Amino acid sequence: MLEKIMVALERMKENRPLIHQITNYVTVNDCANITLAIGASPVMAQDINEAEEMVSHAEALVINIGTLDADTVEAMIAAGRRAKALSIPVVFDPVGVGATRYRTSAAKRILKEIRPEVIRCNMSELKALCGIETKVKGVDSVADTDGKREAAKLLAKRSGCAVAVTGKTDLITDGETFVEIENGHPHLMHVTGAGCMTTALVASFAAVSDPLVGAAAGVLSMGICGEIAAASLKAEEGIGTFRVRLMDAIFCLDGARVRHRARLAVQED
Amino acid sequence: MLEKIMVALERMKENRPLIHQITNYVTVNDCANITLAIGASPVMAQDINEAEEMVSHAEALVINIGTLDADTVEAMIAAGRRAKALSIPVVFDPVGVGATRYRTSAAKRILKEIRPEVIRCNMSELKALCGIETKVKGVDSVADTDGKREAAKLLAKRSGCAVAVTGKTDLITDGETFVEIENGHPHLMHVTGAGCMTTALVASFAAVSDPLVGAAAGVLSMGICGEIAAASLKAEEGIGTFRVRLMDAIFCLDGARVRHRARLAVQED
Amino acid sequence: MLEKIMVALERMKENRPLIHQITNYVTVNDCANITLAIGASPVMAQDINEAEEMVSHAEALVINIGTLDADTVEAMIAAGRRAKALSIPVVFDPVGVGATRYRTSAAKRILKEIRPEVIRCNMSELKALCGIETKVKGVDSVADTDGKREAAKLLAKRSGCAVAVTGKTDLITDGETFVEIENGHPHLMHVTGAGCMTTALVASFAAVSDPLVGAAAGVLSMGICGEIAAASLKAEEGIGTFRVRLMDAIFCLDGARVRHRARLAVQED
Repeated sequence: MLEKIMVALERMKENRPLIHQITNYVTVNDCANITLAIGASPVMAQDINEAEEMVSHAEALVINIGTLDADTVEAMIAAGRRAKALSIPVVFDPVGVGATRYRTSAAKRILKEIRPEVIRCNMSELKALCGIETKVKGVDSVADTDGKREAAKLLAKRSGCAVAVTGKTDLITDGETFVEIENGHPHLMHVTGAGCMTTALVASFAAVSDPLVGAAAGVLSMGICGEIAAASLKAEEGIGTFRVRLMDAIFCLDGARVRHRARLAVQED
Repeated sequence: MLEKIMVALERMKENRPLIHQITNYVTVNDCANITLAIGASPVMAQDINEAEEMVSHAEALVINIGTLDADTVEAMIAAGRRAKALSIPVVFDPVGVGATRYRTSAAKRILKEIRPEVIRCNMSELKALCGIETKVKGVDSVADTDGKREAAKLLAKRSGCAVAVTGKTDLITDGETFVEIENGHPHLMHVTGAGCMTTALVASFAAVSDPLVGAAAGVLSMGICGEIAAASLKAEEGIGTFRVRLMDAIFCLDGARVRHRARLAVQED
Repeated sequence: MLEKIMVALERMKENRPLIHQITNYVTVNDCANITLAIGASPVMAQDINEAEEMVSHAEALVINIGTLDADTVEAMIAAGRRAKALSIPVVFDPVGVGATRYRTSAAKRILKEIRPEVIRCNMSELKALCGIETKVKGVDSVADTDGKREAAKLLAKRSGCAVAVTGKTDLITDGETFVEIENGHPHLMHVTGAGCMTTALVASFAAVSDPLVGAAAGVLSMGICGEIAAASLKAEEGIGTFRVRLMDAIFCLDGARVRHRARLAVQED
């Protein structure tokens, strides 16, 4: 797995794949910048009049429901269908699913009508997608991690995709192979958009590899760079500086650092 | 007052209240990050299909009209009403009221139909809300500060809420108690969103205290951290670094710093 | 030209012109902050209910189609017409024109119905506006620079405006005078919104000078500050720190730095 991730990183920097992102207005700037920082090229276009045409130039599509509305949902569906027709991988971030009925029904519709190649979510969102009763409060995870592996496997099998559940320990699975990643830092929960940015990284990698490798590579990159950014902080520096250093670390990430820092374990079911 | 503010800061960090924010697309990322930095939890959801349900999970609601449109105004009204029904405090930021008739009529409608617990505004906006003729240019204050105390008192009495007017000297009042704060730094006017971020802080504190204390605590936090951030700047550092350090300072803020730096005076009318 | 640019910089810092920007939701925060950093005052308002009234207070208008939709296009047209009627200069950024038919038709409509004073674009966008066949991939330029001068002249003559084409070498022309600028740094292509921010600077300068000088001044400022920011980077610092320092450098820019660093050549046709 680690070798495949390093090949994907190199290939991405070489090819600069175009990543079309239909996403929320809170973290969109961070998503564009992190896509550039890792070595891919972002384009954001959410209007129904151009979403399908734009995705046809892209190498991957992100659908992120962080701040959804009726028009954007239609554009997501249209762009997602076109992506599937063209075999462009779709990465879905069901932000806050379970927090409102509207989000839940939009997420379910996207799962059913698009069948994304990767779902990147937190524990609360995983449980909501699996129909497991859980506490949801806003868009940040408050769920305990009991049953994570079973739920992720269920969702992966049912949806025919790779599932990446981020948290203290990250779990990535296609229902058969399970990748556990121990990298990361609590500060990633102290900035808005760490999840959204991880999804953008996953899509950048998925554009040049398969869904499982892409998901693991994106999650691992964020975890490693979160550690590097946190380790660089001095007294009086907090999440303002952390966000800047995180972007620096992503920009400076290379194969040697990935190999040196990765704490990743792979199991077959 | 200072003791109450320090109690609120502690309680917030303990409880991490969820702050639902219906706000503008210019400064929304800064608002989410500063909410996290102070110790609360942000959620942004402005669609009419979910705004009411989302606010029912929240401990405070921000309504900010920085970039308003017809659909969002309806979501603001719906979420605001639900918040009132559930006794969730509403903090209103009438960005740029007076600059266009559309903003003025939306602001008046929100005041009338929601009756927010706190209004956070600048001097131009205060005068516009009071119907005092004034010069408005864009969304930044150009009004002189004559009659600030009288206007703030009038608005507080008429609207039955706490009013926080930020500027060189900040004034917070519920119509009877007047809190004057001398903290702050001119650089806060050199970055976009200082007002919006202050409003997010006010809501974070209002979630765990009463409106007057919440308003004073939010304004005081911003003033103190603006000073800390500005004092840290070296040659060649300007508002780019200032914004980063401001977020750092909010993240590192604690009761000892508040006590040490607060320049705050309380008067009863 | 250099003397005129320095006069414009001084005049801007003195007058703080209000720059109304109808722009995309990806880079809007950066555009607002850079407008403040250079010494002007930003206001963002894109709703049809207030765009015309807001622009009437402004000293320049930016129209940027980075993330356009049907409603916003109407607001752009309405605000643009009002700006023209009031002799307020309009600066147009045709982000990603050529990438989709929708963008191309919106850009053509804006050109025809508004006749902006300045167009700020990259090489791909220039070719698309001139109807020259070219490769477009997302919103970043991938076109070669063959025929840049001829195409820019054609567009300037046909549209009766100044055209600023940014790239490795920047070219600014009104169809008769040609300004070439060699300042800049590749990192400007590694952050999102460098083009949009340049457009905001162009509008800030155009508010206090003529279109050609305004365009040259905005492009030159970005180039110089990109160099300053890049030169300040240490090991392990990447585009996160670069973005912060870029904003610092714009904030600290003065006539002496412009004179010292400008690599600018002027030719008459």
